[in-house]
Amino acid sequence: MQAFENFNRDELINRKNKLLEEYENYKKQGLKLDMSRGKPCTEQLDLSNGVFNNVQNLFSEDGTDCRNYGLLDGITEAKKLFADLFDVNTDEIIIAGNSSLNLMYDLMAKAFNHGLNGFEKPWSKLEKIKFLCPCPGYDRHFAITQLFGVEMIIVPVNSNGPDIDMIEDLVSQDETIKGMWSIPMYSNPSGITYSDEVVIRLANMKTKASDFRIFWDNAYGLHHLYDTPDQLLNLISECKKAGNPNRTYMFGSTSKVTFPGAGVAFIASSNENINHLKKQISIQTIGYDKINMLLHTRFLKNAETVKQHMKKHAEILRPKFEAVNEILEKRLSGKGIASWNKPNGGYFISLDVLNGCAKRSVSLAKEAGVVLTNAGATFPLGIDPQDSNIRIAPTYPPLSELRTAIDVLSISVELAALELTLA
Amino acid sequence: MQAFENFNRDELINRKNKLLEEYENYKKQGLKLDMSRGKPCTEQLDLSNGVFNNVQNLFSEDGTDCRNYGLLDGITEAKKLFADLFDVNTDEIIIAGNSSLNLMYDLMAKAFNHGLNGFEKPWSKLEKIKFLCPCPGYDRHFAITQLFGVEMIIVPVNSNGPDIDMIEDLVSQDETIKGMWSIPMYSNPSGITYSDEVVIRLANMKTKASDFRIFWDNAYGLHHLYDTPDQLLNLISECKKAGNPNRTYMFGSTSKVTFPGAGVAFIASSNENINHLKKQISIQTIGYDKINMLLHTRFLKNAETVKQHMKKHAEILRPKFEAVNEILEKRLSGKGIASWNKPNGGYFISLDVLNGCAKRSVSLAKEAGVVLTNAGATFPLGIDPQDSNIRIAPTYPPLSELRTAIDVLSISVELAALELTLA
Repeated sequence: MQAFENFNRDELINRKNKLLEEYENYKKQGLKLDMSRGKPCTEQLDLSNGVFNNVQNLFSEDGTDCRNYGLLDGITEAKKLFADLFDVNTDEIIIAGNSSLNLMYDLMAKAFNHGLNGFEKPWSKLEKIKFLCPCPGYDRHFAITQLFGVEMIIVPVNSNGPDIDMIEDLVSQDETIKGMWSIPMYSNPSGITYSDEVVIRLANMKTKASDFRIFWDNAYGLHHLYDTPDQLLNLISECKKAGNPNRTYMFGSTSKVTFPGAGVAFIASSNENINHLKKQISIQTIGYDKINMLLHTRFLKNAETVKQHMKKHAEILRPKFEAVNEILEKRLSGKGIASWNKPNGGYFISLDVLNGCAKRSVSLAKEAGVVLTNAGATFPLGIDPQDSNIRIAPTYPPLSELRTAIDVLSISVELAALELTLA
Repeated sequence: MQAFENFNRDELINRKNKLLEEYENYKKQGLKLDMSRGKPCTEQLDLSNGVFNNVQNLFSEDGTDCRNYGLLDGITEAKKLFADLFDVNTDEIIIAGNSSLNLMYDLMAKAFNHGLNGFEKPWSKLEKIKFLCPCPGYDRHFAITQLFGVEMIIVPVNSNGPDIDMIEDLVSQDETIKGMWSIPMYSNPSGITYSDEVVIRLANMKTKASDFRIFWDNAYGLHHLYDTPDQLLNLISECKKAGNPNRTYMFGSTSKVTFPGAGVAFIASSNENINHLKKQISIQTIGYDKINMLLHTRFLKNAETVKQHMKKHAEILRPKFEAVNEILEKRLSGKGIASWNKPNGGYFISLDVLNGCAKRSVSLAKEAGVVLTNAGATFPLGIDPQDSNIRIAPTYPPLSELRTAIDVLSISVELAALELTLA
């Protein structure tokens, strides 16, 4: 659809004036609304206050005193819980710290400094390293690759995952392509889940680099909004079946299950990769916080109770996601100026506006007191080549504030589109 | 003194036979005693169970919800507490995770990958990097430098700190010497504290490398055994005074104040270094566990209450250290075969035996069921050039077991010395 194809110029000018009036009215309200980051709201945090209900003894089931040194890879019951939840074996997982992002950074640092399992050389000894970056994607992933001086190649994200034809083509030819970022389920921000075909082809594809590695950030693997969730194949098993068992590392945490920054994170991979990594980690630390693992495992109990717990999150979040969709629909549909997704889970809605209008839309919203993630943030180096993608993070604000914020954003998007069309 | 200078050969043979009898008696008991690592004992851990007494609300004093994302460098009251305890400003410290060792590894990784504040190039871009390693020292320090392929130069430790003449001489000439390990207070394992002169000369010395950095592991800065503790100058202030403000990073944690591995760690340095580091850390993680910081700060309260808390640790540990000294004294003194220190704090006693006898002593003790830190562990690559240093970690075993273990060790040391002398 063309932008505003059913409107003539006068109608557009009138429309713009009417919108400016609404916009100015919002501006006068002195709004201070923040939708920049994917933070859980207070009501969600309250769901997990029970983490601290069981502190009377701090011994794990096998009698380990979690208050003392020991157990590099985590306590047994925590390994069991997360292995169950993410469909790996307990010897394929390390429970490690509070931040999966930190684990990704750390794995990258090890890949550069020491080399991971199966590397001929640490990446710091090579002239050039490239990573595939499905886009729109997660700004913090791209910030890590940028910090390490990695060249980032944008791969478009389709409704079934990143463009797998393009990926197969690139990795088969270029041995400097050493890795790929991915958020395979309810992706940040596109909300899509990789199809079985995409996962299987990622596991099987021929790569010129023998040390090509997929950083599989399963951040939203448990974060369904509906009773009929998306389904994701387990890349670790698929890599095993394909004879490429060491190709991927999976990451996750309870940051959006219990407490952001005070939860439990994990890394999973083939047993061979994990054993290699454990040797490196044994030089880095004596161990991670076992008390927090213990309290988390006591609270979360098992895969079934975690599922119930996540349903409570969904009950809080569903109305927010649906409100965003409802307002965008009412404000922007049928005008040929915006499209967005209706995800079945995760933390984001990805809004695509007219090319060249994302920055202006975000800036207009900001002037009216609504802070969004910077336009461009969903691309490497913060540069969206088409300046069209905006990430909406609807989880943190209360519903009424969220409705206002999305209304302001919608007005801003339409105003930016009108400015462009009328220019 | 010569070894066994007052004994003739027959007397030594008799002595050996008598000792072998004692040794065999111990062996028959099937002992399983572990003195290999510096772990607090259960009684010490119990001192901190109160950490979890105040979990009813998880908001910090300034109203931050510690259950959510935010505050990269730690909550205000935690920064204040540790800044007070370690005599730095709150803008010179980051409260970060559970493990100071991890912070050291991490700083080294950043020095290699990205470069720290004031670096011309990341160290990974240089042909050769050397570190000064005061010895005997901490095996885990040396394991980090080894992993990064750093050449380690042994510097002997005297009673006032590492040989500062040698250090000044080396760093003034060799620009590949980029750093130095140090445990300046109640050093692991020598128990010595750096004198004011040594600290001041470290701060002021001319270094050929402009990016020479001292890793100042203040692991035992609070861990006094007596009411008249050693005194340590603050290297960060001395570096400031000397016009070398960015020369050092200090590390510490509550691993041996509250819970090993489930405590709170910090890194401190000049404000410029810390700001530079914060930018790098902001790529690595959204933040560290603020709930644990909050609970720790509520429990530890302030510098004065921490001092009282540490006195309770001292009351538990003093009898253990004194028992070790008493038994060594009784068993080994006056024979010219061993010397050891009587530290005023920390976690270790360093025992020097006849050259060539450390491995044999440790191995004899092990055969009799007493596990010590491997001989050689206190030197780079695990190789003690004189094979004479043994690290005693008296904190973990109950007093009665400790007495037995030290008795077995003493017998082993004397037997090894007799084997050598009679050979």
